[in-house]
Amino acid sequence: MSVFDKEDVRLFSGRANPELAMKIADCLEIPMSATHVSRFSNDNLFVQLGQSVRGRNVYIVQSLTPPVSDHLVELLMMLDIAKSAAAKEIHAIVPYFSYARSDKKDLPRISITARLIADLLKTSGATQFMTMTLHSPQVHGFFSIPADPLTARFKIADYLRPRNYEAEKTIVVAPDLGNAKQAARFANLLGLSVASGEKTRQSDTEVAISRTLLRQIEGYKTALVYDDEIATGGTMAELCRLLVEGGIEEILLICTHGLFLGKALERFQAIPEIVEIITTDTVMLPPEKKLPNMTVLSVGDVFCEAIKNNYLHRSIAEIFEG
Amino acid sequence: MSVFDKEDVRLFSGRANPELAMKIADCLEIPMSATHVSRFSNDNLFVQLGQSVRGRNVYIVQSLTPPVSDHLVELLMMLDIAKSAAAKEIHAIVPYFSYARSDKKDLPRISITARLIADLLKTSGATQFMTMTLHSPQVHGFFSIPADPLTARFKIADYLRPRNYEAEKTIVVAPDLGNAKQAARFANLLGLSVASGEKTRQSDTEVAISRTLLRQIEGYKTALVYDDEIATGGTMAELCRLLVEGGIEEILLICTHGLFLGKALERFQAIPEIVEIITTDTVMLPPEKKLPNMTVLSVGDVFCEAIKNNYLHRSIAEIFEG
Amino acid sequence: MSVFDKEDVRLFSGRANPELAMKIADCLEIPMSATHVSRFSNDNLFVQLGQSVRGRNVYIVQSLTPPVSDHLVELLMMLDIAKSAAAKEIHAIVPYFSYARSDKKDLPRISITARLIADLLKTSGATQFMTMTLHSPQVHGFFSIPADPLTARFKIADYLRPRNYEAEKTIVVAPDLGNAKQAARFANLLGLSVASGEKTRQSDTEVAISRTLLRQIEGYKTALVYDDEIATGGTMAELCRLLVEGGIEEILLICTHGLFLGKALERFQAIPEIVEIITTDTVMLPPEKKLPNMTVLSVGDVFCEAIKNNYLHRSIAEIFEG
Amino acid sequence: MSVFDKEDVRLFSGRANPELAMKIADCLEIPMSATHVSRFSNDNLFVQLGQSVRGRNVYIVQSLTPPVSDHLVELLMMLDIAKSAAAKEIHAIVPYFSYARSDKKDLPRISITARLIADLLKTSGATQFMTMTLHSPQVHGFFSIPADPLTARFKIADYLRPRNYEAEKTIVVAPDLGNAKQAARFANLLGLSVASGEKTRQSDTEVAISRTLLRQIEGYKTALVYDDEIATGGTMAELCRLLVEGGIEEILLICTHGLFLGKALERFQAIPEIVEIITTDTVMLPPEKKLPNMTVLSVGDVFCEAIKNNYLHRSIAEIFEG
Amino acid sequence: MSVFDKEDVRLFSGRANPELAMKIADCLEIPMSATHVSRFSNDNLFVQLGQSVRGRNVYIVQSLTPPVSDHLVELLMMLDIAKSAAAKEIHAIVPYFSYARSDKKDLPRISITARLIADLLKTSGATQFMTMTLHSPQVHGFFSIPADPLTARFKIADYLRPRNYEAEKTIVVAPDLGNAKQAARFANLLGLSVASGEKTRQSDTEVAISRTLLRQIEGYKTALVYDDEIATGGTMAELCRLLVEGGIEEILLICTHGLFLGKALERFQAIPEIVEIITTDTVMLPPEKKLPNMTVLSVGDVFCEAIKNNYLHRSIAEIFEG
Amino acid sequence: MSVFDKEDVRLFSGRANPELAMKIADCLEIPMSATHVSRFSNDNLFVQLGQSVRGRNVYIVQSLTPPVSDHLVELLMMLDIAKSAAAKEIHAIVPYFSYARSDKKDLPRISITARLIADLLKTSGATQFMTMTLHSPQVHGFFSIPADPLTARFKIADYLRPRNYEAEKTIVVAPDLGNAKQAARFANLLGLSVASGEKTRQSDTEVAISRTLLRQIEGYKTALVYDDEIATGGTMAELCRLLVEGGIEEILLICTHGLFLGKALERFQAIPEIVEIITTDTVMLPPEKKLPNMTVLSVGDVFCEAIKNNYLHRSIAEIFEG
Repeated sequence: MSVFDKEDVRLFSGRANPELAMKIADCLEIPMSATHVSRFSNDNLFVQLGQSVRGRNVYIVQSLTPPVSDHLVELLMMLDIAKSAAAKEIHAIVPYFSYARSDKKDLPRISITARLIADLLKTSGATQFMTMTLHSPQVHGFFSIPADPLTARFKIADYLRPRNYEAEKTIVVAPDLGNAKQAARFANLLGLSVASGEKTRQSDTEVAISRTLLRQIEGYKTALVYDDEIATGGTMAELCRLLVEGGIEEILLICTHGLFLGKALERFQAIPEIVEIITTDTVMLPPEKKLPNMTVLSVGDVFCEAIKNNYLHRSIAEIFEG
Repeated sequence: MSVFDKEDVRLFSGRANPELAMKIADCLEIPMSATHVSRFSNDNLFVQLGQSVRGRNVYIVQSLTPPVSDHLVELLMMLDIAKSAAAKEIHAIVPYFSYARSDKKDLPRISITARLIADLLKTSGATQFMTMTLHSPQVHGFFSIPADPLTARFKIADYLRPRNYEAEKTIVVAPDLGNAKQAARFANLLGLSVASGEKTRQSDTEVAISRTLLRQIEGYKTALVYDDEIATGGTMAELCRLLVEGGIEEILLICTHGLFLGKALERFQAIPEIVEIITTDTVMLPPEKKLPNMTVLSVGDVFCEAIKNNYLHRSIAEIFEG
Repeated sequence: MSVFDKEDVRLFSGRANPELAMKIADCLEIPMSATHVSRFSNDNLFVQLGQSVRGRNVYIVQSLTPPVSDHLVELLMMLDIAKSAAAKEIHAIVPYFSYARSDKKDLPRISITARLIADLLKTSGATQFMTMTLHSPQVHGFFSIPADPLTARFKIADYLRPRNYEAEKTIVVAPDLGNAKQAARFANLLGLSVASGEKTRQSDTEVAISRTLLRQIEGYKTALVYDDEIATGGTMAELCRLLVEGGIEEILLICTHGLFLGKALERFQAIPEIVEIITTDTVMLPPEKKLPNMTVLSVGDVFCEAIKNNYLHRSIAEIFEG
Repeated sequence: MSVFDKEDVRLFSGRANPELAMKIADCLEIPMSATHVSRFSNDNLFVQLGQSVRGRNVYIVQSLTPPVSDHLVELLMMLDIAKSAAAKEIHAIVPYFSYARSDKKDLPRISITARLIADLLKTSGATQFMTMTLHSPQVHGFFSIPADPLTARFKIADYLRPRNYEAEKTIVVAPDLGNAKQAARFANLLGLSVASGEKTRQSDTEVAISRTLLRQIEGYKTALVYDDEIATGGTMAELCRLLVEGGIEEILLICTHGLFLGKALERFQAIPEIVEIITTDTVMLPPEKKLPNMTVLSVGDVFCEAIKNNYLHRSIAEIFEG
Repeated sequence: MSVFDKEDVRLFSGRANPELAMKIADCLEIPMSATHVSRFSNDNLFVQLGQSVRGRNVYIVQSLTPPVSDHLVELLMMLDIAKSAAAKEIHAIVPYFSYARSDKKDLPRISITARLIADLLKTSGATQFMTMTLHSPQVHGFFSIPADPLTARFKIADYLRPRNYEAEKTIVVAPDLGNAKQAARFANLLGLSVASGEKTRQSDTEVAISRTLLRQIEGYKTALVYDDEIATGGTMAELCRLLVEGGIEEILLICTHGLFLGKALERFQAIPEIVEIITTDTVMLPPEKKLPNMTVLSVGDVFCEAIKNNYLHRSIAEIFEG
Repeated sequence: MSVFDKEDVRLFSGRANPELAMKIADCLEIPMSATHVSRFSNDNLFVQLGQSVRGRNVYIVQSLTPPVSDHLVELLMMLDIAKSAAAKEIHAIVPYFSYARSDKKDLPRISITARLIADLLKTSGATQFMTMTLHSPQVHGFFSIPADPLTARFKIADYLRPRNYEAEKTIVVAPDLGNAKQAARFANLLGLSVASGEKTRQSDTEVAISRTLLRQIEGYKTALVYDDEIATGGTMAELCRLLVEGGIEEILLICTHGLFLGKALERFQAIPEIVEIITTDTVMLPPEKKLPNMTVLSVGDVFCEAIKNNYLHRSIAEIFEG
């Protein structure tokens, strides 16, 4: 039986990832309310929530997967509807918050879009925010509403732990110093060391990885390459080639957000040392993209537990303990 | 010579309608600054403004034409860049504000999206707003920043006035009571009467128009059908058929925002009584859509005069007088 | 028995319309709490709420009837008291929101006062807003707090339906194109057609109505003149004269907000074709203004149902269905 | 010649005190722009500013004299117009801020209305506030926009200084401990001592003054009774009787804001020891209220100097020095 | 048994006055949750709340005693933690709000710091504020969140009432006109008269008190000197000397906030006529400062009752009645 | 001659680092205005700005050095004074923003204090923010006002470049993965490689550094240890010992913010391989802390150039180019 008073909560899903939303609903033992989304003839979006939200705790699940702008506007409209229909709490549940990567101003006159969107979510009506595996932990501070950035780290570590990777032969590799700290936290869960590439981004698609990585991986045979997201996989492929050059015989590609856009999968299939690709369902993966050596771990239960603890006024932190 | 100190102002254009932006820039005698827009591999937008905006009056031109969500997010990011780069004034110039049509809650649990976007524009950094021919004049009140809704009414009336339409034979027709008031204002400029259809919207594409219109057009030969925007043209075609049935021999279709999406042009071409389609360039029309009997009036000079008066601290209203 | 926990709610009334407030309280089966209003010797208002509001849902009923400014300031002060005394929800219930008519900028340098007041209500402490029959539905979008604009349309239609007006002889008439759409919605409830005058406002008291209306009413005998409010009745009288000229033999004047100020009643009494005046009690009508042919429908139950549904977290829309 | 660029500033006056506004305009050597105020037939106020304010420094003069609510709403609308018409700075100049007296919560569930109005002024568009002689200096802290509370203290002291009142025979008297501190500051300017009544307010019109005042005035012959405002004069008359009982032979009634409402003047004329009533023109005094022994000092020049210093970026404080 | 659902509330204390917080917790019959405060090596404060606050009513007790800045920042951080951890209500309980004294701008270019801090508390997350004995009652109006300024006046009067001070021989004395009104309210509770010094502040430590006080105390033998706070006691000592000169034989020093900093106690011990010093525990007094003739009344029960009434949605005012 | 109109700008300094403020003033060729800071006897701070700020661009320089809380409150008060005295722009120049280190929530129920303070600065009146060498670049996104985080990286690289460190023998070392990215940017300026420690923080003072660093430094002789700040130097000393163990013969300690608190200098003097300590003057270093092998580079000119470019509406980015 659900811990929720069914009449007290509402769960809606945008069009980005209804599968994950349904898993969360199932785990929470509450029904998923309908959301009607269509377009006017002038391309304006039309959104209608299918059930009354007045005075209720409303959970709106929407990942910022492509088409990102449509999914974002859809989410903002859903929040606005809940706000102007007098919902009590409005939780924006964004399993994949793509713009988290736009978290600093490394060029003049660009936008720290993650902050912008944090503000837009609030303006539209969100009273709380939940997401998974932010590109950098500081993005948490962009929100002026209570935010709970969950992590898939424990989920993935639990999956790999039974394999008992030996610390002498196995190393966790971060593609870039920018998220080496997070890779180190993951490595720590498995009792492994961490090495980090140093990426110099030429353009959005071209990167070079410094060869100083070679020193760090000397003597290791297995590399667990750990990143928050994989899109077109260009950097990853480049990194894998360097690892192989450095003596790595077996590579696992690990990420929370597996977009696998463009030629990503072709690139990975061309590297025989990649023995497994591990990702989660924050991004909905179409069946044709599920390679034989790909493992998709569902984080539906992680969101479910977090929502439950939030509702029951328990600490979110404790779901990652023990 | 420009009335502007060139170093004091910056004009940028998003990707929706650079042609109109260029016309405005030319009329203002200032250069248009570059805007770099691209996508990251995860579909996130990347925007960079090409020139320093610090302490300046910044004008950002972007129509909400399809793909509307992309153009909206692009605009919000441009505003955010200007705000966080310490611009002095930030003018969102949105010649075609598509969401103006979502101006009321005629169904439960939908969004008054025009208000939502007014708030998003402000949150993102807009300090002033300018647009043309709002669907209803009340949308002006959705903005908490100074807003100048311009009108193409005078422009179109000036174009038609030399034809000296006779008041006994010519009538202005509004497709629906909802904007009959605006058609009446237009009719007034040409000394004509106004009639109004009463539309009952079945769905976004299907409509029925009440036959009471027939009484109102009895005896007239020429109809100037006047609306704010034409998208797929379904209602318009329906209306035209009713007008022909009622004895109208010559139809002019007039709108400010000519989107002409889907089968719009096919529909109009199938009605021989439509002798002319008059629209403006708030929406960028690709060459292949320019029918021989189509007139596109540029409103670049209207925006130019409004921006100039704003900059010179003159009344905007006076550009429509005398 | 009341659906409310009496200790959980408080209903207060300003001085504009305590009779309606009392009807709402009776229908809700809760007591009306006292409000003490007086003036300091310097004409400042003094307001004290008579019962503790801490942590409660507070409903404050106040119509913006003359003296409008006093009633408005009184309302703002009541909201402020509730806010600073830590009420939980503060509902501004404004049955007659007079300034809804100031909803657009049709002259330079005037105020969209309806928006201004929406903002003042929020600043003063209102967390939700409820009203009846807005002049235009877009005014809903002026509010950044949840708003429920109710309608008296169904109430009035229910009252008239038993008369079975024939569609061939009876027509609903809107005095102006500006609210013709709303008249059409009303007409639809009774299965009637709608005609609309086109008013050209010379000044606040002088108006001319276009004679094109004559075509639309040709052949009809009964006119249901439908407007949101009647103040001094100047336009109405002018319209009635035109209707009579056009062959109408029987006129019903219908409005939600019956102010009947100045010479309104004299004017109507001078037109024998006016057989009935139908209004509601959003505005408190002194006994001396109740003409024999006047029907005042109470909307107390409509507000009661809406407040109840709000409190019980049901949809407000459903009270108008079935 | 004016220190202002005439095109850069605009001065408007509401209907409360156009005489003072005109004096300020004359002193500033700028024209006063027209303000059109009227009422719609439903008692709604209609306000139009007579000149463009775009990009300008706008000064709006309005005292909160009776009818206070009308004058307040009028002011809020004027501010709103200036805001939405894109004025640069909007100065609310409120010579008599009547609600300053509602500055604390000495009863449960009342409004600290001075704070409420400070917030309403800001919401409506005021970017700066100027007033004179606040009831308590703390009211300054109610404003979140820059505020300049001026004082008439120096003006009045300058007027009285030539009379060289002897410190042994003359005493300044505050009617109540609540503003005794301010009376002391005034007394200090004339080198006199101060005594203070202790008022116990029974109701808004009835007060009792503690007889401990008699000790303090023992031996003095002339009393300068000093208060911020005089409305119906009830307290003042009561105080005067006590002073006469205590041996005072000559009384001067001094206040900044002379409302003289109800029976105020009759009361004062009934006390022969009152030799002079000194006030200022923050409140417009109709000719029939100007008693022979009444002195009205104009503070137009004080506001003029303050506005000038504000405009020239000089300290306001310095206009009261040297 | 506690009236609270223990799981629904949390009480935390900063480091300023854990003793008082503990008394409040005991009276409320709820446990005090731990707060961990330490410093990073760069002197930054580190604060961690020891229990989950999600969805709960949180009470944070912190007086602004020296070191004031540290205690203030500590409080702001505690509020911020509660806010970003999704607490439901966040009550800032500040028994001694030191900056209440900075409540006006009596010099150019200084800060009305009490207002600033009211805003900082809100920005940091406080949703309600509670304090005791504000320097002036107007400071209440500086808060935009519901505020409950309690008073120790009744507590102290209850303590002294059994002594039956005779009205002919005993007088309450305010050190300055600025808070004479409050002393009068206290005097009223004991049926005594009030006299007031007039302080001219030379610097923060040097003051002169006008000799006009001598007239007012003539004939009295016992003086109850009443102030909101005593810091270094300079003014108090000066005042006491004047009282003795005026014939007073017995002095009681009474204040809510007894800081007794610097040479305060030495000064008082040097004046033999001071027979008792009465204060409360809003400020934590170290044992070595407790003089034999000092009485410290605990206001823990006053805060306890106020919190209880707030929680139970009863009026706070009523705890001071009957 | 200064590029500024001296009457148009004001530069004030808090008490944290007047030396740097003076250098900035000198470079800008404008005088530094006086700031009077003292304490009331109850430990409240008193701040008065020494010159009128009305309508001016105000620059307030204050580093958050120990005592951090006092310096922070002092800064907030200075901003508040400027705001309420109607300054035009208010720039908070915080060369050392100590709380930038509290940029994420790595424990439950702690504060992301950097975000909190960003909000407090805005609430207090800051309209723009400038700082140097943030701990992580994401902290930029915590600000909702325009922010310019400058860097000392170029300054330090310019100082070291003439030494022509050989890339084979010299390596830049980051103490932790968390800021390895920034060390890499610095290394890049000198054409060197980067290695990074992986710190596991036991407590605020105890840390362990992973021995995997040894692999990365193998073969190098000189290490440029690069961090944003050095406080008590515990981590640094630990790191140095590891470097020496790994064969490093010569160590340069480099940081922007040199606090050198507690035993920092003793620790460094105990390690003979430390040949030079390079820091800047964002933190004011007392003479007794200036070790013979310490180099303090002034960043006064960097702030000066940034302020100048801001004032002249030039890009800040360009001061780091060419």
